[in-house]
Amino acid sequence: MVTIPEHMRAYQLIGHGGPEMLRLVTDGPTPKTRVGEVLIHVGAAGLNNTDINTRVGWYSKGDAQAEDASWGGGTVQFPRIQGADICGIVVEVGEGADTALLGKRALVEPCLREVAGQSLELPWYIGSECDGGFADYVIGAARHTYPIDSALSNAELASFPCSYSTAENMLTRAQVDDSDTLLITGASGGVGSAAIQLAKARGARVLAVAGESKHQSVLDAGVDVVIDLVGGPDWPELLNVLRPLGRYAVSGAIAGPIVDLDLRTLYLKDQRFLGCTVLDEGVFTRLVNLIELGAIQPLLARSFPCEALPDAQECFLTKQFTGKLVVDMSM
Amino acid sequence: MVTIPEHMRAYQLIGHGGPEMLRLVTDGPTPKTRVGEVLIHVGAAGLNNTDINTRVGWYSKGDAQAEDASWGGGTVQFPRIQGADICGIVVEVGEGADTALLGKRALVEPCLREVAGQSLELPWYIGSECDGGFADYVIGAARHTYPIDSALSNAELASFPCSYSTAENMLTRAQVDDSDTLLITGASGGVGSAAIQLAKARGARVLAVAGESKHQSVLDAGVDVVIDLVGGPDWPELLNVLRPLGRYAVSGAIAGPIVDLDLRTLYLKDQRFLGCTVLDEGVFTRLVNLIELGAIQPLLARSFPCEALPDAQECFLTKQFTGKLVVDMSM
Repeated sequence: MVTIPEHMRAYQLIGHGGPEMLRLVTDGPTPKTRVGEVLIHVGAAGLNNTDINTRVGWYSKGDAQAEDASWGGGTVQFPRIQGADICGIVVEVGEGADTALLGKRALVEPCLREVAGQSLELPWYIGSECDGGFADYVIGAARHTYPIDSALSNAELASFPCSYSTAENMLTRAQVDDSDTLLITGASGGVGSAAIQLAKARGARVLAVAGESKHQSVLDAGVDVVIDLVGGPDWPELLNVLRPLGRYAVSGAIAGPIVDLDLRTLYLKDQRFLGCTVLDEGVFTRLVNLIELGAIQPLLARSFPCEALPDAQECFLTKQFTGKLVVDMSM
Repeated sequence: MVTIPEHMRAYQLIGHGGPEMLRLVTDGPTPKTRVGEVLIHVGAAGLNNTDINTRVGWYSKGDAQAEDASWGGGTVQFPRIQGADICGIVVEVGEGADTALLGKRALVEPCLREVAGQSLELPWYIGSECDGGFADYVIGAARHTYPIDSALSNAELASFPCSYSTAENMLTRAQVDDSDTLLITGASGGVGSAAIQLAKARGARVLAVAGESKHQSVLDAGVDVVIDLVGGPDWPELLNVLRPLGRYAVSGAIAGPIVDLDLRTLYLKDQRFLGCTVLDEGVFTRLVNLIELGAIQPLLARSFPCEALPDAQECFLTKQFTGKLVVDMSM
């Protein structure tokens, strides 16, 4: 029987702004399970763009107005514990939750369709609309908690959930198969590098673009699918390289979200654009299977102790690394 | 046995430019059927945006450069007989074409996947990549020639093919059913008014926007599907009104093709954009069935004799009419 302390360590976001809005507490309340929930002892939690985007208010249509600055378009409730990439051990099972989860090592599906046993009309993202994994303990809905059997470390496993499920969701919606040639932007980032592995696992041909590099051969050949995490001023080129009936899937816009769309390209070439955030049914299950099979590999760039989260975010913003930055709660 | 004259009346487009590029000939060669083709004695042929767009070179990415100014992105071959909305009688059946078509009244599917018995890698549009219906006779691929049994006049039937098949294709790709609320822009135009009828025939709820009118109630309520023929500076509002997981289908951009896309709206709301030009399989068959059943009604604004095509185009450009302008070859 595991003893669960009443207080825990956690990194709280206390408002929109710079890194000074991150506050480490050692006496935060350990959360309590409600109907359909489990309590997870966090082993490791990965960093994501969404952590920074939420902190600086990037999701807001206005100038970081608080009213619509959360991932889901609502108001962020402070203090908020961020951290959406969670690997840990289930240490308590709430009323109505599957008791078979108790004691299991698990990954948490970050996009939530259920909270406290209630279905959500609009999905939540863990660490945005509810607390996440930059803490000793976190609450997960049982239906979003996936047992995993793997020889990988907690930090390695925490590198998977957000970026790989986002990438797998994009490939699913774009119906990628072994007949397709893909162009993947932001290929050195978390989702981009995940998309490369997952697309290859589907037998597709992958052309990866990282940073400002241009590949005239890519532009000449044409592609069936674009997987875009970048947007920005060069965005129209992505559509021009897409063949008729091609699919464009997007789940990020780190080089700038406002782009010039030529509607003629979209409709005269019968293109299809697929916005990808909420995971389709089956995506996370498929991801867990691929990890267990060893069909995809973790790309862990660096681990940080919990206390060093601000340093980890600073490192994250430099983008001078390949793979994932993770907070390892055991360090 | 019908006697087919060697020469025929036709309105030829002789180059990119103004109405002066339209030339009426009375001694043009009557076209000959090849493998898989039929010869159609034109009863009536409707006007479309594509006639004007091709004439002025609107499809070109440059300044009406001839090299990419056709509907299909290639060079327009002059002289070209335009006219994509064709109703007529099959008077000759070429080698390998279905002889059951002979003598039948028929509509021609405007988007061609086959020419002279050969499959096309990229589809053609009748009147753009090959000659159309502003003439006494026109060639149609047998597979694109649909017999129709209807009490409607030739001019009324010629009001259907392009706009109604385009609209039905948009509704098909957007998977519209009776649970959906639609916002339709350009609702007074050919495709827009067709989309209204066809969406209602599917049991959907329709909110139509014509011209500059704004409907705050529409914006507040949110819609499941946007059917857009307009684009232009107000375009971002269309995305904002679209619910999460909503579908945006586009097949025209008469108010301007270059729009500001906020990729965050597309991906955070899991929207889907569907460019619609080439008809999906089954769309034209469904359209013919709906006409024969009387489930949709023609909206014929005015008929013109063949000789008055320039006047008809001038009238077309004023947009001061509701429904379709048609050239009636019997007038």
